[in-house]
Amino acid sequence: MLRRRMGYADPTSGRDLLGNRSLCFIFICAFGLVTLLQQILYGKNYIKRYLDSYDGSYDYNSTACKELRQEIMDVKVLTMVKTSELFERWRNLQVCKWQQNMVETNNFKMSLSRCCNAPSFLFTTKRNTPAGTKLRYEVDTSGILPISTEVFKMFPDDMPYSKSQFKKCAVVGNGGIIKNSKCGKDIDSADFVFRCNIPPINDKYSADVGAKTDLVTINPSIITERFQKLEKWRRPFYEVLQNYENSSVVLPAFYNTRNTDVSFRVKYMLDDFDSQRGVFFFHPQYLLNVQRFWTVQGVRAKRLSSGLMLVTAAMELCEEVHLYGFWAFPMNPSGIFITHHYYDNVKPRPGFHAMPHEIFNFMHMHTRGILNVHSGPCT
Amino acid sequence: MLRRRMGYADPTSGRDLLGNRSLCFIFICAFGLVTLLQQILYGKNYIKRYLDSYDGSYDYNSTACKELRQEIMDVKVLTMVKTSELFERWRNLQVCKWQQNMVETNNFKMSLSRCCNAPSFLFTTKRNTPAGTKLRYEVDTSGILPISTEVFKMFPDDMPYSKSQFKKCAVVGNGGIIKNSKCGKDIDSADFVFRCNIPPINDKYSADVGAKTDLVTINPSIITERFQKLEKWRRPFYEVLQNYENSSVVLPAFYNTRNTDVSFRVKYMLDDFDSQRGVFFFHPQYLLNVQRFWTVQGVRAKRLSSGLMLVTAAMELCEEVHLYGFWAFPMNPSGIFITHHYYDNVKPRPGFHAMPHEIFNFMHMHTRGILNVHSGPCT
Repeated sequence: MLRRRMGYADPTSGRDLLGNRSLCFIFICAFGLVTLLQQILYGKNYIKRYLDSYDGSYDYNSTACKELRQEIMDVKVLTMVKTSELFERWRNLQVCKWQQNMVETNNFKMSLSRCCNAPSFLFTTKRNTPAGTKLRYEVDTSGILPISTEVFKMFPDDMPYSKSQFKKCAVVGNGGIIKNSKCGKDIDSADFVFRCNIPPINDKYSADVGAKTDLVTINPSIITERFQKLEKWRRPFYEVLQNYENSSVVLPAFYNTRNTDVSFRVKYMLDDFDSQRGVFFFHPQYLLNVQRFWTVQGVRAKRLSSGLMLVTAAMELCEEVHLYGFWAFPMNPSGIFITHHYYDNVKPRPGFHAMPHEIFNFMHMHTRGILNVHSGPCT
Repeated sequence: MLRRRMGYADPTSGRDLLGNRSLCFIFICAFGLVTLLQQILYGKNYIKRYLDSYDGSYDYNSTACKELRQEIMDVKVLTMVKTSELFERWRNLQVCKWQQNMVETNNFKMSLSRCCNAPSFLFTTKRNTPAGTKLRYEVDTSGILPISTEVFKMFPDDMPYSKSQFKKCAVVGNGGIIKNSKCGKDIDSADFVFRCNIPPINDKYSADVGAKTDLVTINPSIITERFQKLEKWRRPFYEVLQNYENSSVVLPAFYNTRNTDVSFRVKYMLDDFDSQRGVFFFHPQYLLNVQRFWTVQGVRAKRLSSGLMLVTAAMELCEEVHLYGFWAFPMNPSGIFITHHYYDNVKPRPGFHAMPHEIFNFMHMHTRGILNVHSGPCT
């Protein structure tokens, strides 16, 4: 039995090995041919570049960089190319030192100023929302909140930030892309740091994400789910906010009727604890205008992310805007899988946000020199 | 014209004056006769007593005092005599020094111990209400609250007070009777002071009502009406409680379903402010038992006052119980009108409490030497 089985097995495996070897050879030849054709078609010496250059070593205005930028701009819509193709073009662009394009930036800022005007309307203020105003909700458009004196008193007198007040701003997204980036120092050196959804910034993460926070958004769903709407104990939530030193907080209180009370409770809580922290509420009309602005630019979603909202606001409030942790793909530009957030891998509700579209949009803006998307490690 | 009118007026007024004088004379005679008859009937020299004696000067066991006590006990029900008659008998009794009747007191305490057992059941505790208990509300008897672990954790391990733990207790009601009583020192000298419904005890009132507070009840309706159910700012209410130094608070959280959340919020609030103040909830079964106990004693009401609840609890927790500010009549015993509360004149919902019945009951208990009702000024 044993001999028969062995006798039967040997010749077969010998034939298989021979067949595999031939297949391997054919594959290698084909790969070489494709690579050669690619290089001929694009006319660029990839091997040379990857040996000679490092990230940011090429001048912004060099011919090579202009071409590399054009490669990104040629992708008009996200679906035009495979993600891997887009990633490659993006990776290639990293050899070019990013530089702000003042003309593009100023044009963009002017468009924003016309549509949205963050320095006047980002938050509801005593100035832009007098007592008695019938405030229309962002999504429950049939719902109207008459601004009582009590609510009015919770608003700041005026917008706390003015046009291009801050030189360099960092907007920190929560994407897994920022993990191991060591961008903490870079971020903390910004004049103003925006963060989304009260993310963790403790010692475990600060080397990558920094700690400085000047404005952080709070999604009321977090308060509802993790802090029982602040109807019970409030100190646990207060202590979460204590992590963000002197940062102000901003809530979409007027997104829908459900958000209002729970958002106001953050203000009640901070008042109760004698906190001097600023508490602001996004002006629903500002958010609607921003949504409309991006729809025109081709970024459509049921709901734009709070990250995009902050980036849009930052574009008006800062001279130069740097994005970290914004990357909505399951892989980093090198094709390595990354977690959804830098602190967990909880996926969002499908179909709610349009993150890849938003990121694609940021890639274009980066390419046009309007903002700087940091998707790799900071050196 | 002038002369005619004068001529007409003069004789008429002369006749009237003469008639009034005769009437006056008849009245005075009648009054004298009635007073004389009264004195003969009762066999007591009122005039002499009111000249010679002062409050508390007669010995408890003197024949005169026994008789004066009997006069009160003879009034079996409040409607048997006019209030003025009851007041007079009460006023007369004040010449007798009050003394505790140990036999009566111990019998009473024993009855309470059997029916109600405050040292074990006054508040819900971890011991008497384990997690998982299906707690029946006091009035919404169809409503049942399953005690979750979260609620259970808010209960004290065991009752904080034991049987006859305190020598002398003062239970301070909020009746206008206490105004100008100067009983503050008296009250503050007690070993344990109970107060009802977080009344004001600031400098304006403390000479009359004292300041020491060991346990104060909070009616959730106050929180609902004056502190927006603690759903908004909580510090204003916290600061009200700060007036009561180290006093514990007790709430009828399980009176009806409406009371529960708002009562719990007092605990959340105090936890949030790191307060060490005790927060207790009346055990609904204790309150039901006390209500039943007093119904048997003839004190019926839709809802017994929190004052009566405290007095009942005090009877078990203290050796000697002194009542101040308990007087539910529109006049003091001397017939002078008084305000409803010592701090305002807001009348309660009619037909809800049965205060006069409760007070009448206390007058009997005072007379029997079970507790001491202070209705006059403290000397």
